[in-house]
Formats: sequence, structure tokens, C-alpha cells
Amino acid sequence: MKQTATDKIILASASPRRAELLRRLGLQFTVRRSEVDESGVTAATPAEQALLLARRKAEAVAAQEETGIIIAADTIVHLQGTILGKPAGYREAQSMLSLLSGRTHEVLTGVALIRQPEGYRAGHVETTRVTFRRLTEAEIGWYLESGEAFDKAGGYGIQGRAAVFVKKIDGCYFNVVGLPLAALWTMLTQAGGIKMVKGAGMNVNTAPDHQRPATE
Amino acid sequence: MKQTATDKIILASASPRRAELLRRLGLQFTVRRSEVDESGVTAATPAEQALLLARRKAEAVAAQEETGIIIAADTIVHLQGTILGKPAGYREAQSMLSLLSGRTHEVLTGVALIRQPEGYRAGHVETTRVTFRRLTEAEIGWYLESGEAFDKAGGYGIQGRAAVFVKKIDGCYFNVVGLPLAALWTMLTQAGGIKMVKGAGMNVNTAPDHQRPATE
Repeated sequence: MKQTATDKIILASASPRRAELLRRLGLQFTVRRSEVDESGVTAATPAEQALLLARRKAEAVAAQEETGIIIAADTIVHLQGTILGKPAGYREAQSMLSLLSGRTHEVLTGVALIRQPEGYRAGHVETTRVTFRRLTEAEIGWYLESGEAFDKAGGYGIQGRAAVFVKKIDGCYFNVVGLPLAALWTMLTQAGGIKMVKGAGMNVNTAPDHQRPATE
Repeated sequence: MKQTATDKIILASASPRRAELLRRLGLQFTVRRSEVDESGVTAATPAEQALLLARRKAEAVAAQEETGIIIAADTIVHLQGTILGKPAGYREAQSMLSLLSGRTHEVLTGVALIRQPEGYRAGHVETTRVTFRRLTEAEIGWYLESGEAFDKAGGYGIQGRAAVFVKKIDGCYFNVVGLPLAALWTMLTQAGGIKMVKGAGMNVNTAPDHQRPATE
């Protein structure tokens, strides 16, 4: 895989977990924090909300970047009609984990991609179902003491200690961490951001960069 | 969570991925490589084979350790009646990935636990279904160039670049990496290896260590 100068990837996210996910694919990218006020944003469904927020983050960075492929994402934890945000403190985190215990919830990540200067835009929402086993009060206490709960939607991070809470998932695992990698890879390939070079770099397996329609 | 001196956990595995999984739970443990010849082992089903190999690894270490909780595991990749081992070279890895492309396979991990000196034994097999999207030849080439394929059953590691190949999983993600963490946690708790201490270390939520039957 080669990335040329025109394929600069910009991750519009301050999340260290998203950066870490991109890094393990061997992708070159830069990080731009997007300043978007998420508080007033509401949409008809969790999926629409995740995509709307991802788009706003991508647009905010696209307004400042003349070239490159901008990626933004927003992850939502959804249980029985309620969206679980980042817990404000110990008590809220505790009640979120009690709510998740023994139940299946959904994690939705909206991903927005903008390619500059063409203005090509693409969007995707990935949903993963996550089933927690029944947790004891003591286990919730053990988890909260680790401090892992407080900066994460739903009050847990699947990649840390909460791994032992998750009986099974149905869907993309990396979506639960914060970026649906297989779907993102396909989006990047379609946007011309991934160039596959086979063998000794002779067989470039990619569509021309500037002949793609601006689709959604 | 507290681990007392009698709860020494011994990981009977040379796999750096398994050690890394245990580490992120905050568990204290030591590693003992178990010398088991896997070549002649066959069983009626993939599940039985994974458990049999895990047990042999655990027994080999238990013969040398007088106290502690020994954990061993064996991971098998299974597709349409065939078990895919670690590829011997580039060509074999290439054909394994071609076989996995666009299909759903099973990853089975057998876990064996032995608690010494009591001789308490427990076993478990966890199965996760993994669905690959269709891969291009160039993508397989890109993956093989990374070198990640060669020391892994089935010719891929889900936690690295192959993340972008996996459309979805159904089951425990960590099982695919090499240890089913939720199931292992339950086994360790039942064996008395995890002591939950709630609040300021006052409420010990665990069964007495030496009153458990030697079950399978």
C-alpha cells in the first residue's frame, strides 16, 4: 500500500483510541481536533444523530483544509430508546453499568469522509450489538476504581478491563472501540485514499483519483 | 480486586498476545512456556481438539508447579471441515486468506485451568464466528508484505492490519485474539483466583477457596 502526497489523511478527532486504531493499519495521517458543540444536536434516530455529529466534525475541519481526505466519527451507545453519553461522575457511571448488565445494547458509529479539494463526501453508520453478562456490584466497583469509565460513551471501554463484561458482540468489534475499520477502509478505497500496490509496486490497483462523483 | 499470594496465576503460553490480553485486565501473572508436541494430536471435533491441546499444555506446567492457578489455551481456525493452522510460508498464507475471503469461519479457543495444590480442574471452549469481506488479490499482497500472517492460525491476526478484512464477528472478540476474556474471568472467579473487594477493601465477595469441588 502506498499513500501519495495528494492522499493526506486527516483524522478530525481528538480520541487517542481512534488514532491508535488507524495507526495499527499502517496508515499515515495527521490529527486535527474539530471544535463542534455536540450539546444541542438531536436527530430522529441514534443512527442519524451519529452521522450528523460525524458530518459536523468533518465539515469543521474541511473548512480549514484545502487538500486531503478528512475523516470524522461519532460513537453513540444506545439501550432501549436511551442514548448513554459519557458519565458525569462515579454515580452516573455506576448506574450506566448496572443498566448494561445482563442486557444487549447497540453501539453506533457515524463516519463522515470529505475529500478536498474535490468536495467528495461519503457517510456511513455502523451498528454493533454488544451483550454484557450479569455483573456483580463488586465487579462494577472494581471497574470504576480503574478510572476507565469516565471519558467513554456508555461508561465503558471494551478494549480495557470491561473486556471481561462482554459475553459476545454481533458486528464490527472496532466499531465499539470507535472506528468501524472494515467499513472505513472501503470508504477510503472508494475515495482514492488507499492505493494497493501489488508485488514490487508495479500493479497499481486503484481508480483514477479525480474522476469520482461526489456521492453521499 | 485483590490477588493474594495463594492466587498466583501462571499463564502456560508463550503467546505474547495472550499475555497482553491478561495484562490489560490488571492481572498479576507469570508466564511458563509449556512444551507440548501438538503434531500428533487429533480429536473428533475442532472443539475437542482445542480443549485437548489446552489441557495438555496446562498439565505439562501443572506437573512442575506445586501452587497456583495454571491457565492454558489453544486456538483453532476452522472453515468448512478444515482446520487452518499456522501457514508454513507465503504461498500457504496467500491461499488461506483467499479461502477466508468472502466467507464466515469459526475460531475456537480451548481454555484449561488447573488449581494447585488442590488439583481443581476446569475446561471451556469458546466459539466465535468471523466473517471476512471479499478481499482483492492486492489486499492479500499488502497484508502478506506486513509479515503479520506467518505466526498465526488461519494466517491472520484480527488485532492488526487484518482488522480491515473482518466485516463482522458473532461471539467473543478476544477469543479470536487468543483468550475468551469474559469466559476466562468467570473460570478464574469460580476457581477462587479473582477476589472482588468492594469499596475500601471491606467487603470480600468471594467463595472460600478450598471448598470447591474438582469439576470439569
